[in-house]
Amino acid sequence: MQVHRIDHVGIVVRNASERLRFYSDFLGLKSVHTEELPERGIRIYMIEVGESKIELLEPMNEQSEINKFLESKGEGIHHIAFNVTGIDEAVEMAKKNGFQPLSDAPRPGAGGTRVLFLHPKSVGGVLVELVEGHH
Amino acid sequence: MQVHRIDHVGIVVRNASERLRFYSDFLGLKSVHTEELPERGIRIYMIEVGESKIELLEPMNEQSEINKFLESKGEGIHHIAFNVTGIDEAVEMAKKNGFQPLSDAPRPGAGGTRVLFLHPKSVGGVLVELVEGHH
Repeated sequence: MQVHRIDHVGIVVRNASERLRFYSDFLGLKSVHTEELPERGIRIYMIEVGESKIELLEPMNEQSEINKFLESKGEGIHHIAFNVTGIDEAVEMAKKNGFQPLSDAPRPGAGGTRVLFLHPKSVGGVLVELVEGHH
Repeated sequence: MQVHRIDHVGIVVRNASERLRFYSDFLGLKSVHTEELPERGIRIYMIEVGESKIELLEPMNEQSEINKFLESKGEGIHHIAFNVTGIDEAVEMAKKNGFQPLSDAPRPGAGGTRVLFLHPKSVGGVLVELVEGHH
């Protein structure tokens, strides 16, 4: 596996249009892509910054998978994602080194990518996502 | 002010050498720079990833400014920093738009940079750092 760059930083928000005032209006960044994932109860806003992106995660409903995070921690940074090649090696490599994958194999991510999450307890409190492919 | 890229993502750790097992050994990233800031009680490890960096923040002593964060939240992502030009405009621009700067003017940062932090309460729970200049 090879890591190339920060793919994105995921940030949980209650109301994306309010937060876009900061990322779009104040920082002047461009919102490049919006996507709804009804099965996870989240709406995603991808904002370009250099070779990386900011991913705003907004709940769509009361079953949203990010409501637990919002209730316990409030809005804030949720995860960091690294763009990689060779993600298929990552599951075994992670296990061998004591980092806990959240699935047994890479899963389909947004825009045709393949992603693997690592449990924050095994990585010093940081939810890490590995992403292969482009949005 | 113009934003160019994610300068770094700041991550608070208890023991950097333990966490470098993840960032250096597992992800294969290169630790490029270590710096001690005794007046703030922190030791910093900069790790290169594409055009950005991961900044590990480790406490040096019991007076460390990050101990409060460690006690209340534990290890984890602490802030996100954007590389900018025109940082001198940022204080007034931020105030005008309802984002609260943590100082009245940019301050000296690591490696000759100039930095300005914005209060997380005004930016949806995210501690944002603006950085002008290179490490």
